[in-house]
Amino acid sequence: MKNIVLLAGGVGGAKAAKGLYQSAYKDNLSIIGNVGDDDEFHNLWVSPDLDTLTYTLANEVNPVTGWGLKNDSCRILSRLAQFGSSTWMHLGDMDIATHIFRSAKRAEGMTMTAITRQITTRLGITVPLLPATDDTLQTRLETENGWVDFQTYFVHQRCEANVTNIAYEGAHLASATPEVLAAISAADIIVFAPSNPLLSIAPMLAIPQFRDALSASNATKIAVSPLIGGKAIKGPAEKLLQQMSYTPGNKGIAEFYQDICDVLVIDNQDEGETNVIESFGLHAHCTSTLMKSDHDKVALMEEVISAATTYQPEVPCA
Amino acid sequence: MKNIVLLAGGVGGAKAAKGLYQSAYKDNLSIIGNVGDDDEFHNLWVSPDLDTLTYTLANEVNPVTGWGLKNDSCRILSRLAQFGSSTWMHLGDMDIATHIFRSAKRAEGMTMTAITRQITTRLGITVPLLPATDDTLQTRLETENGWVDFQTYFVHQRCEANVTNIAYEGAHLASATPEVLAAISAADIIVFAPSNPLLSIAPMLAIPQFRDALSASNATKIAVSPLIGGKAIKGPAEKLLQQMSYTPGNKGIAEFYQDICDVLVIDNQDEGETNVIESFGLHAHCTSTLMKSDHDKVALMEEVISAATTYQPEVPCA
Repeated sequence: MKNIVLLAGGVGGAKAAKGLYQSAYKDNLSIIGNVGDDDEFHNLWVSPDLDTLTYTLANEVNPVTGWGLKNDSCRILSRLAQFGSSTWMHLGDMDIATHIFRSAKRAEGMTMTAITRQITTRLGITVPLLPATDDTLQTRLETENGWVDFQTYFVHQRCEANVTNIAYEGAHLASATPEVLAAISAADIIVFAPSNPLLSIAPMLAIPQFRDALSASNATKIAVSPLIGGKAIKGPAEKLLQQMSYTPGNKGIAEFYQDICDVLVIDNQDEGETNVIESFGLHAHCTSTLMKSDHDKVALMEEVISAATTYQPEVPCA
Repeated sequence: MKNIVLLAGGVGGAKAAKGLYQSAYKDNLSIIGNVGDDDEFHNLWVSPDLDTLTYTLANEVNPVTGWGLKNDSCRILSRLAQFGSSTWMHLGDMDIATHIFRSAKRAEGMTMTAITRQITTRLGITVPLLPATDDTLQTRLETENGWVDFQTYFVHQRCEANVTNIAYEGAHLASATPEVLAAISAADIIVFAPSNPLLSIAPMLAIPQFRDALSASNATKIAVSPLIGGKAIKGPAEKLLQQMSYTPGNKGIAEFYQDICDVLVIDNQDEGETNVIESFGLHAHCTSTLMKSDHDKVALMEEVISAATTYQPEVPCA
């Protein structure tokens, strides 16, 4: 059985994670989650992508938003507003329990890896969910009004700012965890989820040890494009890629993944982009990439694993 | 109008606070709250007495327990238990909002006095509620199994341990706040609520500056006994006083307050203890001290203020 590693951000990453977790590959799967969105609110440490992955795998995620807990309430935030706190960052009441637990354990000196393991295990999740690093790594964006924190850009400003630069603060000093390095080293297939490349994948790649481990790995590396018909299913991927001077459509995705991946999976309706993708040295694989139902998620991820398994690198002529 | 200061612990103290707050004296009232019960749970700073006072004055207290918020739920604690945390300390969901706010502001460097002012003001409370100190002061109890934290004794062990010693950790290094010292200095009447003397009043008295300020004050000092017929209305006062070698009944209360107060208010049914109380140099004043309704609270506290107002110290013969 092949060892599979999934690199994932939040909502799109969680769909891919769910697909693999419900597939035949679940017993040989590790998921590495982005921590670049992490930040502190009300002195609580919030890890949006790890939580979205956790809640999704535990079947607890809010199906309407794709993040947060289903049936959650928002009384604590209202109370904090009454006390005079700034509450633009949405945090549900039961979601706050996760942040309280995480923050208390961090204060005790527990690593994010160990905390995430305890939360996921207690929720019955049997696949390792590994933070990319135990160190603090925070994505920041430069806009016309200066540098802002990720959540300020993403939630408070609703991705409306024009981004001119992105920094992964702390990444160059961060270590990949032993668990992450072991998972990458043992991987036969590394899947890049249809997450935002610049916000979910790039923060991990900005960790030197992480990037080196990926380069050293002989695994087949396969990315799923987050774009269908040039548009992101959710979030600012397409706008942000263009603001950061990537070419629109899957050509831009290919530009991003050209030195990292072997295969780029695109939607059937974008089949016309095959040639341009292959001009970047990537093999293009077409299938239906829209994940609405759990069935869609499993089908796509089984197709992705199948494409990676059958992928044969072109051997240059002697 | 006379300036009144109330020294108060939790449930009994809050009843007295409510009585004064609803009386004709509310505009000249300051309440000083015990912080000896404070402790950290899940990395959140919990101040049970300040919260009981706050919720009571804001008409938000759970009328069944006398502490906590009415209509509160307990979902966060259940979730923390699911994650593997120890959850014997009861914390309601909306109550946790208070602890989150307080802890966040403490982390920002705000004092307990300023935090409490912000919470009470936002809840519409117009009387100053002053923590006895902004420093950390924690009551600890020595039992047959060694020293334990206050909440371990009070909540986890349900006051069942045999207490052989009490310490007010940090008290000797703690400062009384400028607000507390100003209130005591300006007071005409200082009321000691029918709180547990050893657990609610003694922690304040253990702060040297606080004790000195009380001694220097010319205010009439009047305590309301927490015992009726030798029994505490709530909590371990009578048991603890005896374990700490105070005489049972109001004689023990008089022993405690003999060097501190001028007047001890006792219940009508304990009128027979008048002589023994007066043998300690305290004037005994009898009235109905049971506070069931808000009307009872106002009536008792108006009676207490009246007794303090008419009190005339005996002038020794020349």
